[in-house]
Amino acid sequence: MNFKTLELTDNKLKWIDQTVLPLELSYKSSDDYKEIITAIKRLEIRGAPAIGIAAAYALAIAVSKEKNLSEECIIRIADELKASRPTAVNLFWAVDRMVEYYDKYQGQPRDEIIEELFYESVRIHKEDAEMCQQIGEHGSQLIKDGDTVLTHCNAGALATGGIGTALGVIYTCKQQGKKLHVYADETRPLLQGSRLTVWELQQENIDVTLITDNSAGMLMRQGKINHVIVGADRVTTNGDVANKIGTFSVAVLAKEHNIPFYVALPESTFDYSLKTGDDIIIEERSSEEVTKGFGKQTAPDNTQVYSPAFDVTPAEYISYYIMDTGLRKGKRAKIT
Amino acid sequence: MNFKTLELTDNKLKWIDQTVLPLELSYKSSDDYKEIITAIKRLEIRGAPAIGIAAAYALAIAVSKEKNLSEECIIRIADELKASRPTAVNLFWAVDRMVEYYDKYQGQPRDEIIEELFYESVRIHKEDAEMCQQIGEHGSQLIKDGDTVLTHCNAGALATGGIGTALGVIYTCKQQGKKLHVYADETRPLLQGSRLTVWELQQENIDVTLITDNSAGMLMRQGKINHVIVGADRVTTNGDVANKIGTFSVAVLAKEHNIPFYVALPESTFDYSLKTGDDIIIEERSSEEVTKGFGKQTAPDNTQVYSPAFDVTPAEYISYYIMDTGLRKGKRAKIT
Repeated sequence: MNFKTLELTDNKLKWIDQTVLPLELSYKSSDDYKEIITAIKRLEIRGAPAIGIAAAYALAIAVSKEKNLSEECIIRIADELKASRPTAVNLFWAVDRMVEYYDKYQGQPRDEIIEELFYESVRIHKEDAEMCQQIGEHGSQLIKDGDTVLTHCNAGALATGGIGTALGVIYTCKQQGKKLHVYADETRPLLQGSRLTVWELQQENIDVTLITDNSAGMLMRQGKINHVIVGADRVTTNGDVANKIGTFSVAVLAKEHNIPFYVALPESTFDYSLKTGDDIIIEERSSEEVTKGFGKQTAPDNTQVYSPAFDVTPAEYISYYIMDTGLRKGKRAKIT
Repeated sequence: MNFKTLELTDNKLKWIDQTVLPLELSYKSSDDYKEIITAIKRLEIRGAPAIGIAAAYALAIAVSKEKNLSEECIIRIADELKASRPTAVNLFWAVDRMVEYYDKYQGQPRDEIIEELFYESVRIHKEDAEMCQQIGEHGSQLIKDGDTVLTHCNAGALATGGIGTALGVIYTCKQQGKKLHVYADETRPLLQGSRLTVWELQQENIDVTLITDNSAGMLMRQGKINHVIVGADRVTTNGDVANKIGTFSVAVLAKEHNIPFYVALPESTFDYSLKTGDDIIIEERSSEEVTKGFGKQTAPDNTQVYSPAFDVTPAEYISYYIMDTGLRKGKRAKIT
């Protein structure tokens, strides 16, 4: 990739501030875990896998500053990190993995513990990059030269530690010499599609057209879409998928037009503690992201707004789960 | 209504400048038909019926300024008016009606012709208001106390000469003492839902919640929507409906969730010169409405954009056409 979303240098985390994209490619860095939490809350760092990686780095950085390491202090930092965003399962997974790793080294010399925690956070990052490659490889089997792909939100390099999940499939196809055309939903309210997906596809010279979210149905009816690929924030045991608001609408439209609908994700996005999508807590965002989303007020004062950050796409709408561990058929697979 | 979208006073047209809503309720007025054309092009006046009424007034105003009235001069003015927006059929219908009316009085004294043309334009306005009342009456039979209605774009008093088509049904229900809750799609790219529909429903004390277009599917799945009502810009002989981009996606979602989908329109919106929706020319809007829609750039430079102003909802998705002349069953009527 022509840019690095997250990077550890000199025990500091360096990240792209995604809130100022696409107008500016601005890097920030910090060795204060509270600043990293703020960056996650402000969506400077976003995307389920990237949040997990950043939180792992933040935990290692936080621990390196503690003079008297203790189980209590690690737990406190871990809890603070987990409270930064409620829906992405990778955050909890990565932080818990760091805490478990710490437990193994408890009682060892302080420097050794710190060194080991940094190693572990780098491993989490590298493993994620490797998973993206695998997802790309597996997903590319479903796409042929000349196809057109619709994607929603940003499940790309900006959302992960590697080439991305949904967009990782696109990049892998390109490397294989397949020429694709991508349609990107702008993805209201925060426009991750227009701000981030269009930007990163352009960086990698992928042919992309931006549309408003409400145009996807018309494009499908016109026969312009061959595949839909999206990412996932959390998948439950039965295969229901929580992802950016609007994903479910796209899945219904794809079903109606008999277009295959794929979810690209690392196996770790499965949350086997939850049975179905009904068990997922959905984060609600502030009304101002809808009414004043662009620095300009576009709805009357005191407008009542319902703005869920995610929706749940039931398993029956999904053709394939494209995972690092391989392709898994979804309930809609046979009709594709 | 607590506001007047269009009004003729002292042979001048007075209108609400809808481009500055909802922050400002600003009236403009003019006795120059070219300024009225500009107002239609700038979307200060919008909505298929309102555009037709404004064009009728503009023609009467233009004629009143002509020293030497002639058939040629009327035709020239009519053609200029018709060129202001390409999709709304009411514009063509209203202007043609004015020209035909002129033909009846040709050869009569100039003052009489002018007076008659003003009368005719006022009649077009009054008839539209009456049609809205009828649409409201007929549509209200489909809605019961406590129901929740989703609407897209603005088919309200701001779009017509009366209480509106889709929103006319809501206002009539309210007058009948039914308590409804309305969900308004914000309607990208120009946000007629958040800027106009929320504003006018608030003026009339109707309970309304604003959502992003891509949230509608989730609300339907949650069982929060009982009915969908939209307006129409043009309907073809077979019942296909051209309306604001995004209408088709909502229709598909409604079908999937077995929620009735209604189109509210005056009978005059039917264009019997066209067989099916495939024959409708769809206006494409500028890419900047998507990439810089709020005074702030939200996509990279030189982003390729596809931004159709309208889409076509095929007849098989429509449960009822709510018309001034009565309810007409659509092809989806039986499953509602």
